[in-house]
Amino acid sequence: MNYKMMGRFHALILAIEAGFMLPALILSLVQGPQKTAVAFAVSIAVVAVVAALLFLLSRGAKRDFYAREGLICVGSSWIVISLFGCLPFFLSGEIPSFIDALFEMTSGFTTTGASVVANVEGLSKGILYWRSFSHWLGGMGVLVFLLALLPAEGFTMHLFRAESPGPEVGKLVPSLKKTARVLYLTYIALTVLNFIFLLAGGMPLFDSVCTALGTAGTGGFGIKNDSIASYSPYLQNVTTVFMLLFGVNFSCYYLLLLRKVKPVLRDEELRFYLLLIVGAVTLIAFNTNTMFDSVGDTIRHAAFQVAAIITTTGFATVDFNLWPTFSKCILLILMVVGACAGSTGGGMKCSRVLLLFKNLKRNISSILHPHKVQIVRVNQKAVDERTVSGVGAYLAAYVIILIASTLLLAIDGNSFETNFSASLSCLNNIGPGLDAAGPTSNYAFFSPLSKIVLILNMLAGRLEIFPILVLFNFHAWRKK
Amino acid sequence: MNYKMMGRFHALILAIEAGFMLPALILSLVQGPQKTAVAFAVSIAVVAVVAALLFLLSRGAKRDFYAREGLICVGSSWIVISLFGCLPFFLSGEIPSFIDALFEMTSGFTTTGASVVANVEGLSKGILYWRSFSHWLGGMGVLVFLLALLPAEGFTMHLFRAESPGPEVGKLVPSLKKTARVLYLTYIALTVLNFIFLLAGGMPLFDSVCTALGTAGTGGFGIKNDSIASYSPYLQNVTTVFMLLFGVNFSCYYLLLLRKVKPVLRDEELRFYLLLIVGAVTLIAFNTNTMFDSVGDTIRHAAFQVAAIITTTGFATVDFNLWPTFSKCILLILMVVGACAGSTGGGMKCSRVLLLFKNLKRNISSILHPHKVQIVRVNQKAVDERTVSGVGAYLAAYVIILIASTLLLAIDGNSFETNFSASLSCLNNIGPGLDAAGPTSNYAFFSPLSKIVLILNMLAGRLEIFPILVLFNFHAWRKK
Repeated sequence: MNYKMMGRFHALILAIEAGFMLPALILSLVQGPQKTAVAFAVSIAVVAVVAALLFLLSRGAKRDFYAREGLICVGSSWIVISLFGCLPFFLSGEIPSFIDALFEMTSGFTTTGASVVANVEGLSKGILYWRSFSHWLGGMGVLVFLLALLPAEGFTMHLFRAESPGPEVGKLVPSLKKTARVLYLTYIALTVLNFIFLLAGGMPLFDSVCTALGTAGTGGFGIKNDSIASYSPYLQNVTTVFMLLFGVNFSCYYLLLLRKVKPVLRDEELRFYLLLIVGAVTLIAFNTNTMFDSVGDTIRHAAFQVAAIITTTGFATVDFNLWPTFSKCILLILMVVGACAGSTGGGMKCSRVLLLFKNLKRNISSILHPHKVQIVRVNQKAVDERTVSGVGAYLAAYVIILIASTLLLAIDGNSFETNFSASLSCLNNIGPGLDAAGPTSNYAFFSPLSKIVLILNMLAGRLEIFPILVLFNFHAWRKK
Repeated sequence: MNYKMMGRFHALILAIEAGFMLPALILSLVQGPQKTAVAFAVSIAVVAVVAALLFLLSRGAKRDFYAREGLICVGSSWIVISLFGCLPFFLSGEIPSFIDALFEMTSGFTTTGASVVANVEGLSKGILYWRSFSHWLGGMGVLVFLLALLPAEGFTMHLFRAESPGPEVGKLVPSLKKTARVLYLTYIALTVLNFIFLLAGGMPLFDSVCTALGTAGTGGFGIKNDSIASYSPYLQNVTTVFMLLFGVNFSCYYLLLLRKVKPVLRDEELRFYLLLIVGAVTLIAFNTNTMFDSVGDTIRHAAFQVAAIITTTGFATVDFNLWPTFSKCILLILMVVGACAGSTGGGMKCSRVLLLFKNLKRNISSILHPHKVQIVRVNQKAVDERTVSGVGAYLAAYVIILIASTLLLAIDGNSFETNFSASLSCLNNIGPGLDAAGPTSNYAFFSPLSKIVLILNMLAGRLEIFPILVLFNFHAWRKK
C-alpha cells in the first residue's frame, strides 16, 4: 500500500476544500455574524495546516497507485472532507451538535439534502452558501475537479471510475484530464444558465446563487423553511426543467456540442429516463388532481415533485407526504431508479435498471433456449459480461444495505415507513423521505446511531457502494 | 409446441386432483352439511370429466417435451389445479365469491396460508380438510408427485427443476422417478411423525391431521380463528420443531438415512439457516421480553414466530403486529430469506441469499485484484457461473415484482406497510403480513384487482418466478 501517495492525495483534496471555503468566509465577514466568520477562518486555518502537514509527510512518494489505493482513497477522502467541512457549522454554533454538523455536511457533499436544521431561515448567509456550495462540488465530484486541475501524476482512471456514477464509466475524450475539464465546463455553463433564468424571474441574488448550486448538484438544501413552495410558478418551473437537465448523462451534452444529435435522440437510457418522467407525471397528476385548484397547478406540482425525486434533488413545493399511497409509492420507485449515469443525480441510475431488465430478459430467453448464446446490448453495442455481473452484485449490495439500515433505524422505534423511506432516501441521495422523515420534517429526531447509519448510507449512495465497502473491508488493507 | 403432450400432462394432474378430493367428500358425507358434500361430488365429477376429455383429445401425443413446454406446463398446471380446486369452496357457498375462493385455493396450493375467511371455525370439516391438504400437496409439489407415480414418459428433468425450490436442483439418486419417491416417502414419514407427536400431546384427531398437513407443507392455514395460540405450550413447541424440520433441505434427511452425517453437519446452507434462526430468536426475545410474563414464554413465542416466518409457514401464537418495529423488521427480513432450498418452505431460500453474499464478496475482491480469476464455492464445490448469474436475475425479477405489486396494491389506498408486507408475504408464500394484513386480520378487505395481483404473487413465489414469467411471455408461445 502506497501510504505516501495516499497522503499526498488527501493533502490536495484538503487544499481544494480550504480554497473553496474562502467565499463563505468573505460572505460571513460582510454579512455577519462575527462568530461565523471566525468559525470559517479557524476552519480554513485548520484544513490548510493539516493539508500542509500531509504534504510534507508525503514527500518523495512513489508513483504506483493501483485500484486498491484508488478505491480506498475515494472512500476515505469523502469522509475526510465531510469531517473537516462540517467544522464551520459546529464552531459557529449554528449546528451545536458535532454529529448533526457532520450529518449536514455529508448530506451536502453527497448531494442528499437531508437536513437536521428545523429553521433553515435562521442560519447565516455564509453557512447557507457553504451548504449549497457543497452540493455543487459534490455533484460533479471533488476528485474529478482535482483531475481537471492537476497534471496527471499517477492518479488515474481508478479514481475517476470510482467517483463517477453509473455501471460503465468512459472517457469522453482520450485524455482523462480533458474529459474532467469538459465535464466541469459543461457543468459550470449549465449552472450559470440556471442562475440567469432564476434571476430573470425576480428571485433575489443570494437565493438564485444558492438555488442554482443546489439544483446543479441535484442536492436539495433549500434556504427557505418551505423549500421552493413560496417561489413563483415560473421559478418552480425553471427549477423543474433544470433539475431534469442535470439528471441527464453529461456525455449527451458533449455529443450535442459536437452536433451529433442522432446518437443522443437514440440513447436508450435517455429514452427510458424521459419515459419514466412522463409516465410518473401522468399517473400522479391523475391520482392527485382533486388536491389542487386547477389542472395547471396539478401538473406543475406533479412535474416538480417527479423531477425533484427522480433526479434525487429532493426540493419540494408541496407536502407529498399527504398524497395518496399510490402517488407516494410512485415516488418511492423513482427514488430507487434515480437519474441517468454520468449525471449529477443519484439513485441506482436508469442505465443500471435498464441493464437489470435486459439481463432478466436474457435469462428467461436462455431458459427457453438453453443452447443459444445471448448477448446483452445497449444502444446496439454489446455490454461487457463483467459490467452485467457487476450490476447484479450492485443490486445485491444495495438490497443488503437497505435492509440492514432499515433494521438499525428500527431500534429507535419509529414507524416502518419512516425507517424504510429514510434509508432509501439517504442511500439514493434524495433528501426527504416519508412519514416522520417527510418533506416538511427533518432528520434531527433520529438517534446518534441512526444518524451515523444514515451518513454511511449517503456516502455509500454517492460513491455507488463499492468504495465504501472496500474501505471497511479488512482484507483490502492488508499487505500483499 | 407439443400441445397434445401438454394436454395429456394436464389430464394427469387433474386426475390426481380429483382423486385427492375423495377424502374431503367422504368427510362431508359423514359430518355434513349436505350442501358441501354435493359441492365436492359435483367438483370431482367436473374435474374427472375435464381430465377424461383432455386425455381423449391428446391421444397419440409425440414424446418430445422441451424446456419451453415444461416451463409453460408447470405454470399453467398450477393455475388449472387452483381454478378447479376452488370449486368446492365456491359451490358449497362457504366462500361465496369466486375470486375469494380462488384466492383461498391458490393460497393453499402455494402453501402461502393467506386467508380471506374471517371466521375459520365456521367452515365445515370437509372444507377445512381440503384447505389443509392443499398445503401438503403443494408443499412437495403436485408435479413431483406425478413423477413419483408414473413411469417416465417424456416428462423429464425440466418439470422437476421448475417445481423444486432452490437455485440448483439435483437428483438424489440417478433416476428421477426414484428421487421423487424418496422425497415423498421422507415427506410422508415426517408428516406422520408430526401427527403422532400432536396426538400424543392431547390435540383432537381432526386438529392433529390438519395441523400436521399445514405444518408439513409450511402452509399456515389454521382451523382455529387464533391460529395456534389456544393450543398448549407443548403443542406449540412441537409445531415449532416440525416447522423448522420441514424447512431443511430434504437431501439432508436422505444423507442421514445413508448415515452420511459429516456432509450434513458441514452443509453451508444448513449452518446459515440455523445461524439465522438462533440470531433472530435471540434478538426478538431481548426486544420483546417486557411483553411476556416469563423468560420461558418469551423464548417460546419468539422461537415459534421465527420458525413460522423463516419457514414461511405463517402460523401465529401471538399478534406480532403489536411487537416493536425492530422485531417486526427482523420478521420482514426472515420473510425475504425464507427456508432452505429443496425444502417445502418458500422465500428466496437460504442458499440463494448465501450465493448473493458470496458473489458480492467475489465482486469486491475482483475490483481489488482485477486480473485474478475467482470462483464462487459452496460446500467446497465450485458453483456453475450460470447458476450465479441466474441468482442475480432472480433477485432482479423478485425486486421488480415486489415493487410492481406494492404499487398496484396502493390503488386501494391502504397504508404502505400493508401493501408492502402483503406483497412480500404472498410472494414468499408466508401468509400474514403487517398492519392491516397482520396475523389477526385477513385478506378479505382487498379489492378484486389486488386479490388477483396477490394470487399471481403467490404463484410466482411458489414456482420461483420464471415459470410464471414465461407463461405471460408472448415469445415463449410462438412457434419456432
